[in-house]
Amino acid sequence: MIKTDILIIGAGPTGLFTVFEAGLLKLKTHLIDALPQPGGQCAEIYPKKPIYDIPGFPEIMAGQLVDNLMEQIKPFSPGFTLGERAETIEKLEDDTFLVTTNKGTKHNAPVVAIAGGLGSFEPRKPPIPNIQDFEDKGVAYIIRDPEVYRDKKVVIAGGGDSALDWTIFLAEVASEVTLVHRRNEFRGALDSVERVAELSKLGKVNLITEAEVKELKGEDHVTGVGIHHKTKGEMHLATDHFIPLFGLSPKLGPIANWGLEIEKNAIKVNNAYDYQTNIPGIYAIGDVNTYPGKLKLILSGFHEAAIMCQSAYQRIFPDKKYVMKYTTVGGVQGFDGTKKEAKKEVVKAIN
Amino acid sequence: MIKTDILIIGAGPTGLFTVFEAGLLKLKTHLIDALPQPGGQCAEIYPKKPIYDIPGFPEIMAGQLVDNLMEQIKPFSPGFTLGERAETIEKLEDDTFLVTTNKGTKHNAPVVAIAGGLGSFEPRKPPIPNIQDFEDKGVAYIIRDPEVYRDKKVVIAGGGDSALDWTIFLAEVASEVTLVHRRNEFRGALDSVERVAELSKLGKVNLITEAEVKELKGEDHVTGVGIHHKTKGEMHLATDHFIPLFGLSPKLGPIANWGLEIEKNAIKVNNAYDYQTNIPGIYAIGDVNTYPGKLKLILSGFHEAAIMCQSAYQRIFPDKKYVMKYTTVGGVQGFDGTKKEAKKEVVKAIN
Ligand SMILES: Cc1cc2nc3c(=O)[nH]c(=O)nc-3n(C[C@H](O)[C@H](O)[C@H](O)COP(=O)(O)OP(=O)(O)OC[C@H]3O[C@@H](n4cnc5c(N)ncnc54)[C@H](O)[C@@H]3O)c2cc1C
Ligand SMILES: Cc1cc2nc3c(=O)[nH]c(=O)nc-3n(C[C@H](O)[C@H](O)[C@H](O)COP(=O)(O)OP(=O)(O)OC[C@H]3O[C@@H](n4cnc5c(N)ncnc54)[C@H](O)[C@@H]3O)c2cc1C
Repeated sequence: MIKTDILIIGAGPTGLFTVFEAGLLKLKTHLIDALPQPGGQCAEIYPKKPIYDIPGFPEIMAGQLVDNLMEQIKPFSPGFTLGERAETIEKLEDDTFLVTTNKGTKHNAPVVAIAGGLGSFEPRKPPIPNIQDFEDKGVAYIIRDPEVYRDKKVVIAGGGDSALDWTIFLAEVASEVTLVHRRNEFRGALDSVERVAELSKLGKVNLITEAEVKELKGEDHVTGVGIHHKTKGEMHLATDHFIPLFGLSPKLGPIANWGLEIEKNAIKVNNAYDYQTNIPGIYAIGDVNTYPGKLKLILSGFHEAAIMCQSAYQRIFPDKKYVMKYTTVGGVQGFDGTKKEAKKEVVKAIN
Repeated sequence: MIKTDILIIGAGPTGLFTVFEAGLLKLKTHLIDALPQPGGQCAEIYPKKPIYDIPGFPEIMAGQLVDNLMEQIKPFSPGFTLGERAETIEKLEDDTFLVTTNKGTKHNAPVVAIAGGLGSFEPRKPPIPNIQDFEDKGVAYIIRDPEVYRDKKVVIAGGGDSALDWTIFLAEVASEVTLVHRRNEFRGALDSVERVAELSKLGKVNLITEAEVKELKGEDHVTGVGIHHKTKGEMHLATDHFIPLFGLSPKLGPIANWGLEIEKNAIKVNNAYDYQTNIPGIYAIGDVNTYPGKLKLILSGFHEAAIMCQSAYQRIFPDKKYVMKYTTVGGVQGFDGTKKEAKKEVVKAIN
């Protein structure tokens, strides 16, 4: 069982900065995220796009912001449970919370900060009636270990970067790679599109455009797919794996069933004080919360994290009085005199 | 008369970022600050000290943060009234506000955002009974134009960077420079201290330490100072100018008399919605405001500025519905297609 002071659900910009604010108060933190990497929407949806409204950065790539935040929280060495979705929460007798993931990992903390953004990212699934039956039996929406596909026949579906990049990669690994896309145009980096075109010409990738996979065949495992082509009609293709890569979309998911007040697909908090939910000890910060006047902006998540940590500190240490110190004065580790402490001015006698 | 959409009182980090958030909504802004330069406490008190809790910056000098904010707001070309203190406010018949400075400059706007921090910075004055009588008659607390001192006798008092640097500078301008300091130790950059020691040895600066100016002499203008020396007792020195440089300290000042609800030397706002004060149309953001749970942090001023501008927009355009757009999607100038707009992904046909 993982134990910490503040258990943070969601490692987007808000969750990451919570580690920093908690660290200033010497509170330990652990983050859970359904995605395999930290950064939330910034990392998953638009890492290479510039943001202009992060205060102090006239322009910063979303991915760079995440890198900077990771650097900023390094002194506090947070724990991470990545690639797992927080599924259930339970209040224990000692007034702490037990949070369990879809993979069974258990976490225990006196304070839970939900920084779940728009929810956990779930793969967009194509509308194939029996697709659920084949999940983990030849159907995968995310490629975790490409070695699974060595010397196998693979059908990939999709027209974005993910579909293009994995097609290129698996062309060297699988015995046969087919890329099926609904349209003739691809939305991805120019080199990736050109490389796939080249591999197709060389016969190393089987490219089928203006077509959709409509049917899955097999008993215990996928053995083939049924494809509908715009002009050629129905086709059948033998394959060992079908990998639809249509992107990930966020779903509030299990958190919606935790007994929290939900409004407009977000968790209601009282912003007049500390962003606490209707369950004392559970806070909601960043995109996941709602209150009158709420703006779903990164800079608001930062402020909410700072306020929330002060309240969490009071909950964890009801008898201590915390006096805020500026980082400029105390550094990030308080007064321990590391190099992070502000430099002293020169004091020198003349006479 | 200067007219704008949002008149911002205080050009600290909060006031500066308000320009940006207002600019995103195409609202014009104008800033008033008592200091001759923008940046508030960051620029006046600790420009060369590192801050560690600005989100996304593991470490940034306070002065650098101000420079970055100035760069970030450049696209919106705000107006500035610097070196003047906002003194009075008046509500006009058309529901707009008229703000006049101590120098008589008039500003008119439908919305006033007070981002006054700890107040306007006022010089710390030495306790010399009749010093007020000689202000602008030989006594100055801030040096605006050093040419005033050409070929005159000058007495400077103080032991910090400001006193040291002006002593060095005026040694070349004035006919005679005396530096009086209460102690033997100076608090300033090492080179400055060493340079003053050198000028003293060369006889170019008259250095009197462990001494204090206690008395001013003259009728219409300063003609001399009375000095008390720790061991040598009373001394008299003829001079044309006396310049006490003991730093600036913030005072809430005139704003305290504007009919706003004041609590703990700060302006009360309702943070449940938009940081508006008890007078509709006047907002208070950043260090100057107070509400339950308030943290006097730079990152909180940024959030408050963003929220406040949304509300100001509604006040100025009650009939328009503003739909927030991410800067990543719309750039800082909305959809006008400047280079600031996010780059399109490549769309390319293969077959
Ligand atoms: C294209 C685009 C452009 C944008 N541009 C801007 C902009 O210019 N400026 C701006 O301020 N904002 C912008 N935003 C919004 C900004 O990205 C969000 O405000 C920000 O990401 C919110 O951060 P967060 O940490 O609260 O949530 P998120 O970034 O959404 O992170 C939440 C994380 O929680 C995880 N999670 C949720 N539920 C669970 C669970 N049960 N178990 C485990 N993990 C879970 C998710 O997987 C996710 O990683 C933009 C968004 C998009 C999509
Ligand atoms: C030594 C030190 C270290 C600090 N370290 C940190 C840190 O590590 N992290 C952090 O987040 N914060 C820190 N702070 C606090 C931080 O500087 C303030 O929170 C921040 O400056 C507040 O910004 P502001 O724009 O609200 O107000 P200010 O920076 O105070 O600016 C207000 C401006 O308004 C002007 N003004 C006021 N009244 C009037 C008037 N009537 N007319 C004209 N002008 C007026 C003033 O002259 C001033 O320039 C520190 C402060 C100090 C002193």
